[in-house]
Amino acid sequence: MTAPPSDRRVTRADVARLAGVSTAVVSYALNDGPRPVAEATKQRVLEAVRLLGYRPNATARALKLGSTSQIGLVVPGVSNPFFAWLTDRIEAQARARGLATVVMNSADSGVLEVVTRIASLQLDGVLIANEVTRGDLLRMENSETSVVLLNQPTEIAGIRSVIVDRYAGAFEAVSHLIGHGHQRIAYTGPADPEEARRRGWSDALAVADLPADLTLRTEYSRDAGLAAATELLEMPGPPTAVFAASDEIASGILLGLHQHGLSTPDDVALISFDGTEEMRYARPPVTSVTQPVDDMVRCAFDLLGPDMAVGAVRLVPQLAIRSSCGCGPSLPQKAVRS
Amino acid sequence: MTAPPSDRRVTRADVARLAGVSTAVVSYALNDGPRPVAEATKQRVLEAVRLLGYRPNATARALKLGSTSQIGLVVPGVSNPFFAWLTDRIEAQARARGLATVVMNSADSGVLEVVTRIASLQLDGVLIANEVTRGDLLRMENSETSVVLLNQPTEIAGIRSVIVDRYAGAFEAVSHLIGHGHQRIAYTGPADPEEARRRGWSDALAVADLPADLTLRTEYSRDAGLAAATELLEMPGPPTAVFAASDEIASGILLGLHQHGLSTPDDVALISFDGTEEMRYARPPVTSVTQPVDDMVRCAFDLLGPDMAVGAVRLVPQLAIRSSCGCGPSLPQKAVRS
Repeated sequence: MTAPPSDRRVTRADVARLAGVSTAVVSYALNDGPRPVAEATKQRVLEAVRLLGYRPNATARALKLGSTSQIGLVVPGVSNPFFAWLTDRIEAQARARGLATVVMNSADSGVLEVVTRIASLQLDGVLIANEVTRGDLLRMENSETSVVLLNQPTEIAGIRSVIVDRYAGAFEAVSHLIGHGHQRIAYTGPADPEEARRRGWSDALAVADLPADLTLRTEYSRDAGLAAATELLEMPGPPTAVFAASDEIASGILLGLHQHGLSTPDDVALISFDGTEEMRYARPPVTSVTQPVDDMVRCAFDLLGPDMAVGAVRLVPQLAIRSSCGCGPSLPQKAVRS
Repeated sequence: MTAPPSDRRVTRADVARLAGVSTAVVSYALNDGPRPVAEATKQRVLEAVRLLGYRPNATARALKLGSTSQIGLVVPGVSNPFFAWLTDRIEAQARARGLATVVMNSADSGVLEVVTRIASLQLDGVLIANEVTRGDLLRMENSETSVVLLNQPTEIAGIRSVIVDRYAGAFEAVSHLIGHGHQRIAYTGPADPEEARRRGWSDALAVADLPADLTLRTEYSRDAGLAAATELLEMPGPPTAVFAASDEIASGILLGLHQHGLSTPDDVALISFDGTEEMRYARPPVTSVTQPVDDMVRCAFDLLGPDMAVGAVRLVPQLAIRSSCGCGPSLPQKAVRS
């Protein structure tokens, strides 16, 4: 069998021929269903995908002449400060490339409905900031639109993704709290055992021979963080430090601790995840695992280009150290009046 | 002269005929330039506009069959929490009507360039959240796109606008601070004498026979607010209360006051303008003039409809009273640990 001529796009049929399977099996293998595929077959398909440079969602239209000159952005909620930041940078990057940005918020309708609707717009590409499953992506299978996942915790075979290593960020944050002498460190956020931030938290504790027994499932909102503060303090053997999975949760926890008459970091230290600007202005300023938003956006646009192979770019977030962890001044630095 | 047949759109030529002027003079009168128009002529043009129901930016395409099913949104910066909130609500309202939202941020390129670019997209309508001048709108004159200004301090003749009465909001906020016994109340924000929030501040002080001598020009950012705190305290006869023109400014001032060893509201009280969610979680929670975002967005979409006359909808913001003004508890409410 020969490779397809270089002047036409690689199709699913090419992959099927090279792997010696039907086109349906290629789809099942890449999308992890709906029918099962034997592991050896799946590996053969993935090898063919790699060899041919096949992209399940055709990218050839992206950025070419005659395009709509628009890209789509699916986000779980623009008013969340992290997604506002991400939306702001994506729009700027798109505009610099002569593209307009169509924003769709999946908060009310759910990601499936929004992804289906945005796929129907025939855009030059779609960036998805929601966490999605292979099943969600199946819905875009027949679309001509190329897709990049830019806020994905783990790779999905055959889909171009920007992955922020949340595990590494969480591990560093919790190790930092351990370095401050904390032994009772709670985790608040999504509580799924597969959740990377939770795993980073528990592994950092395990390395230090500390128990990972303080987990609190918390939605991504300030109100949920406020309620979480009370729940954390009512736990048996309450925490002396908290790692929050988002800045919004941390914002609520900070107010909640204060309402309980507790001081941060002296009574309960805090590190959050996202690193939005607001955390620099919190009281005290909150130490945060900071998402590499500019890099995420640049990589996502690179992946949208027609020449990029299927694959994932992995970025590591940085810990921005401020006062809420116990570093730096927790008291005012100077007084001009008294 | 007869009115034009009701089954075709009113044009600028119709207005010119009824007013007895050239079409160029209609444009000059409505756009306040580039050439001067005698006041009596201008009034005749505005009367003709009113009588004929003329809209300078043709609305007939809006929301009709064969449209692009997209609306545009021009904002000065999505990462500003107020504009993030506004963008979130506009996207939701658009999606509920089957429309996708194209967002363009004017922060880097300036409103003129962005308005020109978005006009070229042939959208069903454009909402502009920037404050614009008649001159800016001239650039969209030949576009088929209907425009609604949804964050405008004052009306522009012939342009549909949602106007939030910032003057009334500021007046109420400053009167509230006066009610708490403050006599030295500063204003920080845009310092243009025409600025509605500044006028509301100075008029509230004038009504109470208090001097309006503490004005600090401050950009809309947290960093500017942080710097403003120091400048305010260095003023001769420094303020005991501050009215900030935005939540971002207030966020910076709050941290700045704290860094100077001052307590809010006991040493310096604070009221801000916007009412974003973050202010509920500030320490102390910040009393804010709250923008009626849901009403602004609903009215803006109503004005986009083809049957709406040119005109302005005026909305009054509400004062959300929290602790930073001196109301409510400024100390923690309860302590579960000590």
